[in-house]
Amino acid sequence: MSESLSGEQVVDLDDAHVFHSWSAQANRNPIAIEKAAGSYFWDYDGKRYLDFSSQLVNLNLGHQHPTMVEAIKRQAEILCTVAPPIANAARSELARRISEVAPAALNKVFFTNGGAEANENAVRLARLHTGRQKVMAAYRSYHGATAGAIALTGDPRRWPNEPGVGSTVRYWGPYPYRSAFHSDSPEQETERALQHLRDLIAFEGPQTIAAIVLETVVGTNGILVPTDGYLAGVRELCNEHGIVMIADEVMSGFGRCGEWFAVDHWGVEPDLITFAKGINSGYVPLGGVVISDEIAATFATRPFPGGLTYSGHPLACATGIASMDIFVEENVLDGVRSLATDVFAPGLAELADKHPSVGEVRGLGAFWALELVKDKQTREPLVPYNASGADAAPMGAFAKACKDGGLFPFVHFNRTHVVPPCTITPAEAKEGLAILDEALSTADTFCS
Amino acid sequence: MSESLSGEQVVDLDDAHVFHSWSAQANRNPIAIEKAAGSYFWDYDGKRYLDFSSQLVNLNLGHQHPTMVEAIKRQAEILCTVAPPIANAARSELARRISEVAPAALNKVFFTNGGAEANENAVRLARLHTGRQKVMAAYRSYHGATAGAIALTGDPRRWPNEPGVGSTVRYWGPYPYRSAFHSDSPEQETERALQHLRDLIAFEGPQTIAAIVLETVVGTNGILVPTDGYLAGVRELCNEHGIVMIADEVMSGFGRCGEWFAVDHWGVEPDLITFAKGINSGYVPLGGVVISDEIAATFATRPFPGGLTYSGHPLACATGIASMDIFVEENVLDGVRSLATDVFAPGLAELADKHPSVGEVRGLGAFWALELVKDKQTREPLVPYNASGADAAPMGAFAKACKDGGLFPFVHFNRTHVVPPCTITPAEAKEGLAILDEALSTADTFCS
Ligand SMILES: Cc1ncc(COP(=O)(O)O)c(C=O)c1O
Ligand SMILES: Cc1ncc(COP(=O)(O)O)c(C=O)c1O
Repeated sequence: MSESLSGEQVVDLDDAHVFHSWSAQANRNPIAIEKAAGSYFWDYDGKRYLDFSSQLVNLNLGHQHPTMVEAIKRQAEILCTVAPPIANAARSELARRISEVAPAALNKVFFTNGGAEANENAVRLARLHTGRQKVMAAYRSYHGATAGAIALTGDPRRWPNEPGVGSTVRYWGPYPYRSAFHSDSPEQETERALQHLRDLIAFEGPQTIAAIVLETVVGTNGILVPTDGYLAGVRELCNEHGIVMIADEVMSGFGRCGEWFAVDHWGVEPDLITFAKGINSGYVPLGGVVISDEIAATFATRPFPGGLTYSGHPLACATGIASMDIFVEENVLDGVRSLATDVFAPGLAELADKHPSVGEVRGLGAFWALELVKDKQTREPLVPYNASGADAAPMGAFAKACKDGGLFPFVHFNRTHVVPPCTITPAEAKEGLAILDEALSTADTFCS
Repeated sequence: MSESLSGEQVVDLDDAHVFHSWSAQANRNPIAIEKAAGSYFWDYDGKRYLDFSSQLVNLNLGHQHPTMVEAIKRQAEILCTVAPPIANAARSELARRISEVAPAALNKVFFTNGGAEANENAVRLARLHTGRQKVMAAYRSYHGATAGAIALTGDPRRWPNEPGVGSTVRYWGPYPYRSAFHSDSPEQETERALQHLRDLIAFEGPQTIAAIVLETVVGTNGILVPTDGYLAGVRELCNEHGIVMIADEVMSGFGRCGEWFAVDHWGVEPDLITFAKGINSGYVPLGGVVISDEIAATFATRPFPGGLTYSGHPLACATGIASMDIFVEENVLDGVRSLATDVFAPGLAELADKHPSVGEVRGLGAFWALELVKDKQTREPLVPYNASGADAAPMGAFAKACKDGGLFPFVHFNRTHVVPPCTITPAEAKEGLAILDEALSTADTFCS
């Protein structure tokens, strides 16, 4: 039985038999997890890590939330699985709950196992609804690794998967700190980013464009918070040209931004919202698409040509319901907003002031990035874009310092993201910032 | 809470808020499931169905197997989820177990949430390993609905999703009852099907072909059992040209054919085997790819560019371990082979003799098809290929007769598949055949 394995055996078997994502298989030297609770997990040597990554930014309710564990146990007794055509209580109820908190015109949910499949199906819906093929997707984005989702992705993970699905038109989103538009204010960034989109639409042909896909707040590629007016501007462009607006909230939804859906922060209503991760913190694989009435109506009598064996899986849906209950009972959204105002915004600003390596701090909710630079003036990244090996050593040293200090960080390129469980306590969050403070001194040594 | 919904509410909420796969959304009129156990499930009116479909042919251990439920509850207490880079006992142990039962040279497992993602990653592995792009995939096949998987699919579900990923070369597999090669014996079918492949390889250019994908036994598209020598012949062609052989065993693996892997029945070793469904009966979404040492070695120092948040999900992996334990403890594989010999082969042959509508019976293990025809002589299908609406009425009437009789059937085009849980008892199986017998009298009325 797996429970009786030693930590060493867990690692040895992992080395021998598990094939790993996004990495070379040799010399991985992984941490093995023995147990976890709340904002912490432990390896087999009893070393404790404060989880500032929420694993892959999915564990919004933290590790082993007792109500979630209970919900799994209860639903397991009732009904683990059933085929998608057969109605069941957990799926029906979760679909109702999601519709309830989603923007007013979004009232149907297509369930998947995760984020990639959610985006695959959102694009399918958009293409068939509009009868158009092209999809506009951003540089600095990640949308998943299936062929359709990786084709949308605007980061280096796409490169080795090319050529792939065609018909993606790529655009740049707003990012004042490294503006693609040479803007010198957030207002100008919004204006120019929208002009850029408008130009691309004109030159690609509006009647050929099915959808504009964006991460409401860009996640892995930098916690890029849209400048004010940007999302509303995209909405207008979509309305003008009959283009479907798809908000990928796989990472930014369900509490991460202090809202049910990140778009709520700006009061914008996309036509499709994709979700996964935070919907149930990944206790059971689950994702999906929330669908506008208008798009759903296209498929009232015309069959929707997509599906998967575990669409609307009862065990997964039951954990979604439990998670939404917990959000309400424990005031998770309010808690996240308070954490942002009381702990992260001031605490991270302090780190930025203090450390030469911190070029910018940005974020909202429980969704923050520190962008590390060699020089605050020139903003030269601490490591080059997509660095690996020796080039990435400064970030490696920083990550090691975090882990040595008992913090499990989320590190990507020249950034570290502060993305703990939404349920982290202020005291734990401050504990994490103190460890970051220490580790940033290591990063500082690489400044010029 | 979802438990307190009435059957009517479950259906109403399903209609209002669940967006459904592979179907028009209006007028669905679904069954709602209240409870399930073993080979049966019940709707809210207390009507019992004998599950001759294993839901979507995933429920190899039947509904609510107590050991599986227990395994979920136990693992939920230990650790529900963790990110893929962090080693954990359930994932390590399941990877070891799968490697143990897989063909000798296949010793690494990449885990996914389901079958489509498994095939996506198998093709990714094959393309990068060979440095080639084209993939050969069969007509009469289903490989999933993400962009990469639907591009492999050789049934009408692909059509509305085109144009999609390019570089698929399509071939016909062996199917003596409706031979694409005008053969008049299984031996000739094997020979000609291999010649057809050989010709395609020559004309497409062997050095451009990354992989040949096949369902070891074709599932949804007809339970097409490969003629003797075919799989070995494909293996040889692959060896000759450095082409990766991918066996999709999402449906045919883990007991369905009375073996751990269906290829075991023919003693053939593919380079990659994809699995899902039967690995854990879908109690928690899980799938994956078993990978040969040779292909794994390609990624020893070169990063594998694919991944997903829930790769090697502990809760899912724990149910995989439990399921493999149950297979051994309950002698599931032997049971399936006995069922085939003692119940299905003779029982279905009897139905074929008796009913003018049964053109052919074929299958193995717990994986059988009855092909329904208007006329045994001409073999004209009871309904046309891909029939819908009025054209499909005869199969609709047949399915209704099954359900009225208390049997939940798997119906596809002009076929009904006999694909109950692998754990069905001989008495239950016979009960099911008796209901089929009745329902086939309805089908008979449509014969010419
Ligand atoms: C914004 C976004 N979209 C999609 C995905 C893909 O989700 P999954 O890994 O569940 O396929 C991710 C995963 O990190 C993500 O962050
Ligand atoms: C042979 C085969 N491959 C792949 C799939 C796709 O699996 P999933 O629905 O889990 O994506 C299926 C599903 O029916 C299948 O039968």
